[in-house]
Formats: sequence, structure tokens, C-alpha cells
Amino acid sequence: MSRAGGIPVPQGGEDVNESWQPNEAMAAFIELDGDRARRRGYPEAVYCEGKTPGQVSAVARAIRASGTTTLFTRAGPAHTKAVLEVLPDARYDEDARVLAWPPEPPAPAGGRVLVVAAGTADFGVAREAQLTAVYLGRAADLVTDVGIAGLHRILARLDQLRSARVIVVVAGMDGALPGVVAGLVSAPVIAVPTSVGYGAALGGVAALLTMLNSCAPGVAVVNIDNGYGAGHLAAQIAAPA
Amino acid sequence: MSRAGGIPVPQGGEDVNESWQPNEAMAAFIELDGDRARRRGYPEAVYCEGKTPGQVSAVARAIRASGTTTLFTRAGPAHTKAVLEVLPDARYDEDARVLAWPPEPPAPAGGRVLVVAAGTADFGVAREAQLTAVYLGRAADLVTDVGIAGLHRILARLDQLRSARVIVVVAGMDGALPGVVAGLVSAPVIAVPTSVGYGAALGGVAALLTMLNSCAPGVAVVNIDNGYGAGHLAAQIAAPA
Amino acid sequence: MSRAGGIPVPQGGEDVNESWQPNEAMAAFIELDGDRARRRGYPEAVYCEGKTPGQVSAVARAIRASGTTTLFTRAGPAHTKAVLEVLPDARYDEDARVLAWPPEPPAPAGGRVLVVAAGTADFGVAREAQLTAVYLGRAADLVTDVGIAGLHRILARLDQLRSARVIVVVAGMDGALPGVVAGLVSAPVIAVPTSVGYGAALGGVAALLTMLNSCAPGVAVVNIDNGYGAGHLAAQIAAPA
Amino acid sequence: MSRAGGIPVPQGGEDVNESWQPNEAMAAFIELDGDRARRRGYPEAVYCEGKTPGQVSAVARAIRASGTTTLFTRAGPAHTKAVLEVLPDARYDEDARVLAWPPEPPAPAGGRVLVVAAGTADFGVAREAQLTAVYLGRAADLVTDVGIAGLHRILARLDQLRSARVIVVVAGMDGALPGVVAGLVSAPVIAVPTSVGYGAALGGVAALLTMLNSCAPGVAVVNIDNGYGAGHLAAQIAAPA
Amino acid sequence: MSRAGGIPVPQGGEDVNESWQPNEAMAAFIELDGDRARRRGYPEAVYCEGKTPGQVSAVARAIRASGTTTLFTRAGPAHTKAVLEVLPDARYDEDARVLAWPPEPPAPAGGRVLVVAAGTADFGVAREAQLTAVYLGRAADLVTDVGIAGLHRILARLDQLRSARVIVVVAGMDGALPGVVAGLVSAPVIAVPTSVGYGAALGGVAALLTMLNSCAPGVAVVNIDNGYGAGHLAAQIAAPA
Amino acid sequence: MSRAGGIPVPQGGEDVNESWQPNEAMAAFIELDGDRARRRGYPEAVYCEGKTPGQVSAVARAIRASGTTTLFTRAGPAHTKAVLEVLPDARYDEDARVLAWPPEPPAPAGGRVLVVAAGTADFGVAREAQLTAVYLGRAADLVTDVGIAGLHRILARLDQLRSARVIVVVAGMDGALPGVVAGLVSAPVIAVPTSVGYGAALGGVAALLTMLNSCAPGVAVVNIDNGYGAGHLAAQIAAPA
Amino acid sequence: MSRAGGIPVPQGGEDVNESWQPNEAMAAFIELDGDRARRRGYPEAVYCEGKTPGQVSAVARAIRASGTTTLFTRAGPAHTKAVLEVLPDARYDEDARVLAWPPEPPAPAGGRVLVVAAGTADFGVAREAQLTAVYLGRAADLVTDVGIAGLHRILARLDQLRSARVIVVVAGMDGALPGVVAGLVSAPVIAVPTSVGYGAALGGVAALLTMLNSCAPGVAVVNIDNGYGAGHLAAQIAAPA
Amino acid sequence: MSRAGGIPVPQGGEDVNESWQPNEAMAAFIELDGDRARRRGYPEAVYCEGKTPGQVSAVARAIRASGTTTLFTRAGPAHTKAVLEVLPDARYDEDARVLAWPPEPPAPAGGRVLVVAAGTADFGVAREAQLTAVYLGRAADLVTDVGIAGLHRILARLDQLRSARVIVVVAGMDGALPGVVAGLVSAPVIAVPTSVGYGAALGGVAALLTMLNSCAPGVAVVNIDNGYGAGHLAAQIAAPA
Repeated sequence: MSRAGGIPVPQGGEDVNESWQPNEAMAAFIELDGDRARRRGYPEAVYCEGKTPGQVSAVARAIRASGTTTLFTRAGPAHTKAVLEVLPDARYDEDARVLAWPPEPPAPAGGRVLVVAAGTADFGVAREAQLTAVYLGRAADLVTDVGIAGLHRILARLDQLRSARVIVVVAGMDGALPGVVAGLVSAPVIAVPTSVGYGAALGGVAALLTMLNSCAPGVAVVNIDNGYGAGHLAAQIAAPA
Repeated sequence: MSRAGGIPVPQGGEDVNESWQPNEAMAAFIELDGDRARRRGYPEAVYCEGKTPGQVSAVARAIRASGTTTLFTRAGPAHTKAVLEVLPDARYDEDARVLAWPPEPPAPAGGRVLVVAAGTADFGVAREAQLTAVYLGRAADLVTDVGIAGLHRILARLDQLRSARVIVVVAGMDGALPGVVAGLVSAPVIAVPTSVGYGAALGGVAALLTMLNSCAPGVAVVNIDNGYGAGHLAAQIAAPA
Repeated sequence: MSRAGGIPVPQGGEDVNESWQPNEAMAAFIELDGDRARRRGYPEAVYCEGKTPGQVSAVARAIRASGTTTLFTRAGPAHTKAVLEVLPDARYDEDARVLAWPPEPPAPAGGRVLVVAAGTADFGVAREAQLTAVYLGRAADLVTDVGIAGLHRILARLDQLRSARVIVVVAGMDGALPGVVAGLVSAPVIAVPTSVGYGAALGGVAALLTMLNSCAPGVAVVNIDNGYGAGHLAAQIAAPA
Repeated sequence: MSRAGGIPVPQGGEDVNESWQPNEAMAAFIELDGDRARRRGYPEAVYCEGKTPGQVSAVARAIRASGTTTLFTRAGPAHTKAVLEVLPDARYDEDARVLAWPPEPPAPAGGRVLVVAAGTADFGVAREAQLTAVYLGRAADLVTDVGIAGLHRILARLDQLRSARVIVVVAGMDGALPGVVAGLVSAPVIAVPTSVGYGAALGGVAALLTMLNSCAPGVAVVNIDNGYGAGHLAAQIAAPA
Repeated sequence: MSRAGGIPVPQGGEDVNESWQPNEAMAAFIELDGDRARRRGYPEAVYCEGKTPGQVSAVARAIRASGTTTLFTRAGPAHTKAVLEVLPDARYDEDARVLAWPPEPPAPAGGRVLVVAAGTADFGVAREAQLTAVYLGRAADLVTDVGIAGLHRILARLDQLRSARVIVVVAGMDGALPGVVAGLVSAPVIAVPTSVGYGAALGGVAALLTMLNSCAPGVAVVNIDNGYGAGHLAAQIAAPA
Repeated sequence: MSRAGGIPVPQGGEDVNESWQPNEAMAAFIELDGDRARRRGYPEAVYCEGKTPGQVSAVARAIRASGTTTLFTRAGPAHTKAVLEVLPDARYDEDARVLAWPPEPPAPAGGRVLVVAAGTADFGVAREAQLTAVYLGRAADLVTDVGIAGLHRILARLDQLRSARVIVVVAGMDGALPGVVAGLVSAPVIAVPTSVGYGAALGGVAALLTMLNSCAPGVAVVNIDNGYGAGHLAAQIAAPA
Repeated sequence: MSRAGGIPVPQGGEDVNESWQPNEAMAAFIELDGDRARRRGYPEAVYCEGKTPGQVSAVARAIRASGTTTLFTRAGPAHTKAVLEVLPDARYDEDARVLAWPPEPPAPAGGRVLVVAAGTADFGVAREAQLTAVYLGRAADLVTDVGIAGLHRILARLDQLRSARVIVVVAGMDGALPGVVAGLVSAPVIAVPTSVGYGAALGGVAALLTMLNSCAPGVAVVNIDNGYGAGHLAAQIAAPA
Repeated sequence: MSRAGGIPVPQGGEDVNESWQPNEAMAAFIELDGDRARRRGYPEAVYCEGKTPGQVSAVARAIRASGTTTLFTRAGPAHTKAVLEVLPDARYDEDARVLAWPPEPPAPAGGRVLVVAAGTADFGVAREAQLTAVYLGRAADLVTDVGIAGLHRILARLDQLRSARVIVVVAGMDGALPGVVAGLVSAPVIAVPTSVGYGAALGGVAALLTMLNSCAPGVAVVNIDNGYGAGHLAAQIAAPA
């Protein structure tokens, strides 16, 4: 998920191997890969959770040196501080826990992405999906609080739903909204379960299962709370031809 | 769930204890219980699964002797044969796998029960719920194939939904229908998950979890494929004051 | 679960859509829904867990403006502070972690609700169920510490149990109390598992499974620790005809 | 998943309600829906598993009457016989367990779909995905036996992988192939876990989890063995603009 | 669980090692073990499930040669046939699926064992427990159909319950009976979950969890459907001093 | 697990019911129960986890008033402080997190209990089992650090193991020790899984399953980390005739 | 797991892609891979479960054409018939459900492999491990019925255990044997859980968890019933330097 | 896992038994075990998690007295402080949370161990594996950030991978790297799942299942985050002949 593979992680131990050097046999693939990144302009992403602030800081310094567009996702306060010290002009979104650098997203191209959140507690994950799509070069709208307990709320959005090239639907608890949306539109639906709910929500597993079992075809699912993954996939689906 | 407690199961072993005899201290409770059964007219139920045909036959003979109104649920072909040999006038419903004796249900009283099935494959369980409610003395309707993949189907039933005293909603796969229905009505909703679906349906556990996590209040859940339990509870909720 | 669907959540981003506006096609449903709320007088509920204090505060301000009767459930200290700053006369119950506004519940109508808690540790959830039923307009009593380890405690309550229109039974650990109660009464039983117990309680999943598998018919189950859902459903079951 | 909602299921019971009649309030939505089906030309699908041959036969007769393009999925021998008696010119694919009627797929339009199967045992599910995409109007290729145990097999397909608009990757056991493919291409990847493997494959749950946790972004997942759902979603993603 | 460790299993392969020969260092332990078996007179047990009839037959021949008292548990029809051909006077119990040889149990000694089964479907497992205790030398009674749905049935047995040295309680579905019994007696309770019930019984896991979480102390649990293990443990607890 | 059923929990709400009053029908049972407690002299137990310090304090005051011998288990620092303020002479064991009042255990009677802990991290749970048995009137020894990774440690204890009337075996991680012990002795073994171990220990579930599947007969299992339950059951098994 | 990647699977559909052709960029890797196979002489393996007899037959014909040494694992009767028709001199082992072709294993080289099976029911899986190791060129012994219920059986094998280069330990039920063995030897232990046992064995998951949680270091685990994987890994560990 | 079995744990209670004394019958085994430890020179290991600092300190003092080479694993800050007070020259590695005493590892012998970590967040576990192998006397390298999302990174390491005697592969999220590596090399692969990832990673269970289901043979798995176990096993596999 990150180009940090080629960055020497600070560890000081002499029995840790030196950083990555491609051998000759791999040259063709690497070239292709570099070409792909250049062509699409997709930003790199650094998943901060489970990394130390020092590790994140080292990655940020390497990014500053290379000038690569990058998203830092799931950034806690210490990660955020570490990134902002190195990249002070990075854009920080508190709800999404995302930092983007450089701060300006690319000009939007391709189809329109719509992110729909069932409840207020799903807002952060939905926002992460929206920002990811935006920084991968798509126009992306966000609609909140349209859960199925009051069906009129989503039905009132039919025109907006039907004008999107792809819809990301974020929901916790029963996770039923993606299936309802998929039954109303032609566009593909990416479902994101969230870890919101009482005990039998099982930290989002219940919503995940609901979405996988959607009786309306046209739904695929990403990991629990993984707004980044949904936004990335939405950007790929809505990519310009 | 059965009155077989007082019936000597045929086992022939001398180290099996003689049949049940109440001691004096319990007389008050037994009397109360007998009184309760007489007053409510609720039929007994015999859960056939896991019982041998011989055991079911013995229970049927005891029922014939006592004249108690009874439902035999989850009756396979061998159970059905065993019951019909003893109680040839019992009413048999193949979809519900239920036998009722005597065949005539009581005259309906109390509120109206509505049973709603999301898909065709949920029909058997829904039918079991409907028949149970009917034999416990309620008027009960059944609506099928109104799953959320085509939301217009359930929305077209709003008047019928809103006129019921209690609604039983039967659904497999994503199990999302009960939450949608609960958001549309004032009546309590009893949700019945079914074991219908692809692998991640986990034999009905996915639908069960969806229903427990319904974001619309007013939903409670019974066991997977347990149409009998749902019909019984619906009859209690809709009981005449 | 909340009317916050129509409330602009504070997010400041220009790429977030403006607040909800019904289109014409939905007018009929919305009207019906508004009518339903007016007729029943059921309060709205705001599930605080997973929401920021700022989000809860915004919802509280919208509620103050509209005058809608509302319950705030699962309110932590920061949520409570946020609500009380906006609605200083709200009634706060520490055990139930519930705030109610306006503080006076409606005059009770309909049947009597009885909430039964197996142990002292289940008290908070039971209290949430009781308060929810009370604020939805029912008379509701609460009995505690009548678990099955000392069966005489629940048997001594037979008269009280049999006089209720609906019984909410709250239990952790083995979750066996609802099945025992259901075997003693005619009324429907709503079972609430709690997350109380040693490791194999699995955070309430063990009690949940017990309740779903109750061998006494007449039991339906809500989510783990979901006193609000049980109280709401009980109020619906015991609603005046 | 089926238009059978409007078809009277044969049940004979007088207490089952008459077939579906839209009320006036729903007219707008139904019209929109009908319009959508007409515009896209997507076939209906009937999920046969869990339905009786009699039910499937009734659906087939209704389809013959209406002339609607239809896929019958997960058709066992008895279902297949029932369909072919009513629709003798339906095309039957034994590997995919799919029947299509009318037998000719629509002329392909939109982007190219590529279906990739890790092993021979995944062929049936992959074939179902391919046929679904074809009958929804896409050109769709199928590649088999390119699992990660011999990485050269998938790497040798790079050009083909990179020329697809969307890739469906079908894999059992470790389910690792979709993540590997996603790391090599720009196109979105739909991952389909299959129930193939030793005991800890848990009937496909292991592969499902692998796919949800893909460390390469650009992967979304459908239900276990659900080739139909993957093919449908792929057709939507690759739909002509 | 079997003395088959010293018996050459028929496999014919020359690369399978010859049968067990104790080395000198182990002599002390073996002697102790032999002494223990002789002193207690406990029969050996052969768990038939997963063994081929040929393997069971070979074990039976070895047992006939050594004259060791033996129980064959979980014996299907083919196992039963194989045993009876070698040991034609073995006692066969169809409900328990147990064969005992020699057919006469030892004279009972020690405390009294009481086996209690919640429902008729639990009878086979309860019978296996009873027979195991009897063949290990205890007096053992069996009571059936005293589940908690009709509490008066178990309360009417108080004197019998309180006169046992140890009680084995067998229950499926909610598995609540052992906790109820433990609350009524001083004796230790061994709980045996059975695989009886609707889907969320999870093949006996639900009952198992209930029993592990019993809020009455004095309950310990054995494996699902493991009547043999419960009967063995009961015999040990009730052993003469 | 507590006699707190008859103690008015402080809640102040007027809609909470008054404390427990037996009705006439229950008199016989209550009398029997009181007699049982008096005869056995078993202490009451209060499970502190999930109770507020205020609730525990109220229970302690009631106990002081009645003079009932009591164990407080799973007592955190705040619970301990609350109990010691009311019962300053209570004995507190920090490892077991148990408080006992009055501090002197009864004189030991009956058979000898042996508690065996696989590792140092299992010591607290083992100590809770030992203290519980001691306060229920048994002599109880404790052996630690005899896990199966060094089999000689448990084999060196054979004489001690074979002299006990009942053995409690406490183990985390693989939970294999109880099965090994049961294969070496005639006495019943109570197995207690602990929540010690790496991730796949699943908080003790792995050890729990191992113990339930013990291939040596003579093992029964209590809940994870439930030293109290094991000690209580051991005391019952080793009770004087 | 199979070289079938390069074999055209018979499917007849024109929209299935032609068979595998390496592109130029991959030539280096393929060559390396071919070289590896030639150098090690490890046989290919075809996992038959989930493949049709026709598919297996096609693979067998390709193998006959190429002369590649091959194992067919998990072969049911129809698979076996299909293979023997094409490769009549293949060696078939009924216990292991393995076919080997050509029938003669290579001359053994490298260290000695020891396969240990806890019980008779584990014999088939152990035999599959043994045969796999033998056909990969190792000397491999097999010991059965040395489960921990009678510890003297495994202790009597200490010399044999300590003379092996690597030990494969196969066990169902509690899965405790690998940890016991690992505590007695210096060699690495490969643990194979089997699906043998009562309900809470969960089809081998219980034994799997036990093995992963072994408190003796030196144990690693393969999939449930996967004798092939264990034998393969053992052969790699014991490979000649 | 520790020699603490012979160390009197400080508990002060008179009813805790005195420390371990071997009886005569066990002398042979103990001697053999002592001999094994002396011959291999493998360090002891103390798993600190779940132990109190006081317990760890007592173990450290015993180790200082005996001069045994020891690793303290999973050491938190308080454990580290306790060890360093007793063994001030112990080597502490913060990433691995390991203390080694004496600080100098033995001179390397045997084959080369290679530890491969998929991502930066897996570094700590990989480091623990590396240090364990080093202190058990092997040369061990460590490679990081070569996850499958960018396949060129691991392919560029082919020479290094193929020169190792055994490879430890550490990965979280999808856990797919070990299977990819195993398909590229002849050496055995030990897979270590880590608890890194979004919700459906289930704390490492998803990666664990992936690894168990590896479709490339030659992979065995240790517990989640168990770098110590992997390093130990690798050292055993790469031991000098």
C-alpha cells in the first residue's frame, strides 16, 4: 500500500539488510510499474496505524524528497504531528484522520463518485472515502444520515443516486443500506461496513455479512471501516476511459 | 415444548425411572399451569426433528387419548407417516412441514397477524409461522416475494402493513427486510432469519445478525428458520385483551 | 433511529452536500410518516456512542428548536455535558446513561410493562429499557436480582409476572432467565442479553444464543445490552388498542 | 433478484394473500424501475437453490409468457429439468449450473471483462461469472489455473490483465490471487472466494477474509461461490458510458 | 481412550513400524497403570466414529483375547456388526449406540448417579451416560423430559435430585437445565450439551456456552453429545472412598 | 451466585419495585433452601466485576448485618476499598482478587483438593480456586509451573496427584495439561482455561476447546479464568459423605 | 499445487482463452523454476477434491505424456478410477487416498522423517504425510496410537523420537500430542490437526488452535487433515544439504 | 517455556506447596532433559506478558544465580525495568520487546535463517524472530517492506531467498506473502501472522487462515505475533547436522 518498500527504515541493527536494490531480471516489471504510476497520477498511501511516529516521519521525509503525492490514512495525533513537522503544508482532515500532500487535489476527471453514509457515526469513514476519491482525481459528493430506518430519506435522493458513475455506501449496525441503494440504481455499489453498533454488531462483522449477502446484485464489499479502500476502488471504476 | 414429559418413553430398560409423578409441594404450580392451558386454548407443540418415528408415534397416541390440540412441527416424511397412522384426520401442510390435530383451527380472535416473506425460498418458514398463529387462534395473512432488492414491492403494501397488530418478517440472505418494515409501521416486528443464501450467509447467521442490529427500533428476533416460534409469539402479542 | 437525517451536520467542507430536501415523488410517504409520529407521540432517540460531543450538541440544538420529545441513549460523560449545556432541564439517569427531554414523561397508557433483571450487574440495561418504555407512554415496573441460581426468587413473583402485558427480561452470563419466565406466563417475553460474565460469555454472545434457543416458545431477542430497543418494542406491544 | 415478486406462487391456501397490486402512491417508482429495466436490457435472474422444482417451473412459465430475458443460477438437475420442460431452447451450461433464456446473449457493448480462476476447482464459479457478464451484454474472457503457487503463470498474462476494463478473480484456499492481480493493474478487481480447500478453509471464509484484507487497494469482494454477483457487478462497471 | 495403542493395526505397509514395546525406563509407569486398571475395574472404551469396521473388528479380537471389559461407543450399524461377529454376547443398546462386553455390568458400588435429560431428543446421549456409569460400577437412574419450559417437572423431582451423589444433566437448545438443577442441589452437576435445535443452536455450541456460563456454581461441562465422558466422570466422582 | 436477591439495591426511583417478599405458594421451597445453606455452611459469593463500588458496599453492609460467610470475587481496587470500609477484618488476597469474611476459613473436612497451575501467569486463577475450596471447608494444596513443555515436572508429582480426591488443573495457551493429568490419575479433573497466550489463544477459547476435547476421559470444564467456579465444584466433589 | 496450469482444461467454450504461453519478459523466471524442479526431483501433486473425474483424467493424460512424477491426493473412488484408466501402474494407497506415478518412489536421501499419529482414526492423514515424504525422497517411519491419554506410550518411544531429523505429529480431538512431543526432542515438529472428535472439536479447529498455542516452542502447524502439506514440508526440512 | 518450574514463586501462603522435588521414578527422564539442554546451548525463554514485574524479577534473580542463557520476550516497560535491575548488562531491543542475557549471542553455526516482513508494521515481530534465531546460534538476516502489493520487491530478492536454509515470513492483513515466497523457493517457510489490519483482519486471524490455506506447499504456521516461536523453530530447522 506504500512505496516505503524502498526506504531504509531506521533500525540501526547491523544484521538488518541494506535497502532494496532491483536485480536485472526484474527491470521490465519495475519499469512498467513506474510507468503506471506516472500515467495515472494516483497518490501513494501510508497506513499509519501500527507504525511508530518515527517510522511515519521517516516515510514523510522520503516523500518530501521524491515529491510523490501521498495520503497518510488512519493518522492518530502523534502520526499527524510527525507528518506536519516534515510536511507543514499537508492538508489534514480531522474527521477522516487523513493527511494529504501536496494539499491541492488533482483536477477532477472521469465519472462522478457519490459517497452515502447511513448515520452520523459513519461520517468519518465516509469522509475518508470521499477524500481518497478526490485525491485520486474524481469529483466526489457526500450524503449523510439516510439510513433505512426512515426510507423516505434515501428515496428522496433518487435523482442524485442515479446520476453517479459509482456509489460508495457506508453503514454500520445492520449494514442494510447498500442493498437498498443497489436495488434503486444501475451503477455499481461499493459497500463499506463500519464498526458502529451494539454488541452483536461484532465490531462491524454483522454489517459486513449483511453486505456480502445483499439480495440485490451489484454490491461488492471492502474491509470494515476501510474508507480508503472504497474511495480508491471508486476512483478506479469512475476513471476516464 | 411438549407434554411428553408425562409420557413413558418406550425403552424397556429397568434402570430407567418410572414416569413422572408430582409430589405434593408442586401441586399449586401444576394446577396453575393446567389452568393457564385451559384458559388460553393454545395447542401443544411437538418438535419432531431429532425424535424417532417411534417416539413421535407414542406422543401422538398420548395426545389422541387426552384430546389435546397439538401441532407437530418440523415433521419429516417418517414423522408425518407416524402421526397420520395414529391421527388420520390430522391436517398436514407440506410447505410448512406441520401437522395439526384436530384439523380445524379455533375461531380467530384478537388482533390481525401479518406474515411477510422476502423471497420464494422463505415460503416454508413463513407458512409455519402463519399456521402456528392460526392454530393459536389468530387471523393471519401471508405475503411473499417482497424483498428489498425491489423496494416498490414492500412500499406497495403499506396499507396492509399498517393495519396489522403485529408483523412477522421472514428473510434469508441479507435479512434486511425486517428493519425496512419496522421503519414503516407502528406495530412490533418479529424477525425470522432463514438459512437461505450463499456461503457467507453462514446458514442464516448473517441474516440473524442483521436483524439483531436493525437500526430501526421495534424489531426482535427468533431462531433461524423458527417459524413456529415467531407465529407463537405473534399470537401472544395479538392476543385479545 | 434519529430524526437527525434532516439536520445539517457541521462539517464545513464545500464538497459535502446540502441538507435533505424531499423531492415531490416522496411527499406522500413523508406526510404519512409525520402523521405517524404525531399520532403516537413516541420520542425520537439519539444513539450517542460513536458520535462526537460536537455532533450530539448540534442535534440537541436542533431538537430544542423543534421541541421534539427525545431520548439520548448510551450517553457518556462528554455527551451528557454537551446535552445539558443545550437542554439544561433534561432528565439524566446515570445508571441507564439516558437523557430525556423534556424531563416529564407522557401520562401512561396501554398495558403494563414489566422489566426483570437477573443480576445487579444487569441493572443499567434494565433501567434503560424501563425508562424508554416510560417515555414512550407506558407504565413500567422493574424487578432485579431474580436469577435462576435461586429459583424461588422468580417463582415468588408469579403474580406480578402474570399481570404484565409484556415482560422484558435482562440477563447476562447464561442468559437462562427469559426462557424460565416464558414458561411461567402467557405474555410475550423480550429477552435482552448483557455483556456480563467470564470469558466464555463472549461479551454477551453466549447469553444471546441461549435466548434465541429458548425451549419455551414466546421469547424474542434484541441486541446485546440494547435496553432501549427492548423498551421501545415493549411499548409497542403494550400500546393501547 | 427475481421478478417473481409479481408471480402468484402456487400454494392453494385461502389464507395466503392474492398477488401483488401496486397502490397509487407507488406508481412513480414502479414506472422508473420498469424504465430502468427496459433501458439496460439486463436479464432477470432466478436463484434456484432452496426453491422447489415446482416453484421454478412456475417462474419459468411466467417468464415465457412475458418474454423477459432470464438467467437461472445454481440450478441442480431437477431445476434444470423443470426449466427445460417449459423453455426447451434455453441454453444450459453444466459447469456454471446456469440456464439462459433466450439462448442467444445480447451483442457485446462496453468495456472488456476478464475472469481469472486460480485453480481448476474454481472453474464452475468463474464460468458462472463469465456467462453472467456475457448475458448482461459484455465481452468476457476466462483464464484458469494461474494461482500464486507458480507466480510466472499470472505474470505471463500481464498484457491481458492490463487490457481489461474490470477483472473478476476467483480463488479458493488462501484466496491470495486477487491481491496479487490488483497490485499489477489499474483496473478494479472483483474478488470471488470459493469454498475449495482443506478444513481451515472454513468453506470459503478463509479466502473471503484474505480478499477483504488485501494489502493492495482496488479489490472488493462478493459472497462465497457467488459467480453471478461478480459477473453482474463486472458488467455494471464495464457498462458503456 | 482405548487400549488399542498396543494392538497392531492392520496396514500391511513395510514402512509402518512394528507394534509397541516398552523400553526399560518406562516399566515403573506401566506397572502403576496396569495396577490402577486392575484396582478400579473400569472398562476400556473404544470410540468407533472415524474408525473403519476392520479396525474395530481387530480391536474386538484383541479384547476377546485379553478378556478386558470394554465399551464400544458411537457405534454405527457397520461397527455394531463387526463387534457382534467377534463378541456375539456383547450387550447392544440402540439408543445409546453402545456395545458392552462382557454383557453383565459390575455390581454397583459407591454413590448414586442421576442422569437427567431435558427433552426426548436428548435421550440417546443421556442413555450413553447412564450405561457408562453402570459399566463403571455405579447405580445410575435416568429421568427424561424435565426441561425448563415447564418448570414444575423438574421441581417435582427435588427429592430425587437431592438424593444423588452426582447429577449428569443433558440438554440441547438453550442448555439452561443444568444451571437450574445446580441451584437446587448440593451435589456436583456435570452438564452435557447436545446438538439438538434450530440453526442458532450451532450444533450444540449454544448449549455448551450456556452451561459454561451457568450463574449457579457447581456446574462443569463436557463435550457436545459426549454422554460417555459425562458418565465416566460421574462414576469417578461417585466412586467409593 | 449471591444472596443479594433479597437486598434492596439503592436506586431511589419510585418506579422500581420494593424488595422481595415470598408469596405463600413458595414457602416450602424457601424453607428447604435455607436449610440447605445452614447445613452445608458454604459461603455466599459476590461477583464484583460489572458492579459499582456503591452496589458492592451495599451488599457488604447487608452481609455484615446478617453475619453470612461471604467471598467477594474478581474484586478490583475500588471494590476492595468499598468492602474493607464496611468489613475491615475481611481477608484480602491480591493474587486471587478475593476478599473473604469472616477472615477465618472453616475447619477442613472431606477429601483433599489439589490445584495445579501450568504456568506462573495462571497463578491468580489457581489461587482463586484454592481459596474458594478452603473457604468452602476443604484442605487444598496448590502446585505451579508444571506445564507440559517439560513433562518431567508433572510426572515428578505423581504421588501427590494420586492422593487427591479431586484435581483442579488451570492452564492457558494450549490448555493441554488437564488431559495429561487425567490420563495419570483416577480422580476427577476440573479444567480451568485461562486467557493467557498469543493472539490465536482467542482470550482463552483455544484452551477451553482443548479441554472440552480431552482424549482422556475424566475431565470437565468451567468458564475461562473462573477459579471460583472450579474451587466451588471441587469442594462439592470432595465433600464429606 | 499442480502443473495443470499449462494444460488445456476441456471446456469447449469459444470464449475461454487458449492455453498458457509465456511472454518474453517471464522467460528468466520460468527457466529458474524448471531448473528447480529438475534439481530437486520433487513430484507434482494434484489435489483431486473439487475436481471432476474428467478434469483429473485430462491431467493424468498430460502427466503420462510428460513423464512427470506425480501424486494425486484426496482421491475419491471416481478420481481413482479415472487415474488408473490412464496410468494403470500407478500405486494406490486406500488409507491415504493417494495415487503415485510412477509407482516406485525415489531412493531415500537426507534426514529421517518420523510421522506420529495420536489415534487410530488419524491413521489415514498420517499415512498421507508418510507417503508424501517417501515420494519426495525421504526415509519415513510411522508410529500410531500414542496419544497423551496414556503418556507411557509416547515416553516409551523417546529414542525413536530423538533420532528423527523432523517429526510430523498428527492428532485430532484435543490436539495435545505435538506440544508434548516438542517438549521431549530437539527436532522441529510439524503438527497436523485432524477433524476427528465430538461436536466441540469443530471439525478440527479445536486441535488446530491447541497446536498453534503449544506452550513448547518448536511446533508449526499445517491445515486440518493436510497430511500432504506436512509430508512435503518435512521432506524439505530433512532435505540433504 | 521457562525453567521457572523449579523456582519458588513468592507467595507467602502456607497452603502453597513447597518447590519441586523429583521422585525416583523420574530420574532417567530428567537426566536426559538436562543433557539435552547442555548439548544444544539453546537459551531459556520467559514469556513476560501476564506475569507481574515481581514474578519476572524473581525469575531474573534465579537466572543470574544459575548463569543460564535466557531471553525475556514480550517485555513491557515494567518488565524491562525489573529485568535490568537484576541483570543490568542484559541487551534490550525495543522493537522486538526482547531482553537477552548474557548480552552476547553465541557464535553462529548451521544454516542461514532469513526473516522477511511484508510491511513496516510487521517489523517488531520480525525482529523478535531474528533475535531469537541469533541467540539460538544461527546467522539471521532481516528484509522488510516486500509485501505482495508490489510484487517486484520480493521478486528482486530471489537470490537472497533461495540462499537461505529456512525462511520466516511475517505478514499481517491478507497474510499472502508466505505462500508467494513458498512458490519461489525450495526451503521450508515458517509463516507468522501479525495482528495488523482493518476490522476484518480479526486481530490476525485472517492472516493466520490465509497462511494455513496456502496453495503452495512448504508452509507451516505459528501463532499470531509469535516471532519468538518462529525464530526458535527456524533455528531448529537450520541446526548444524
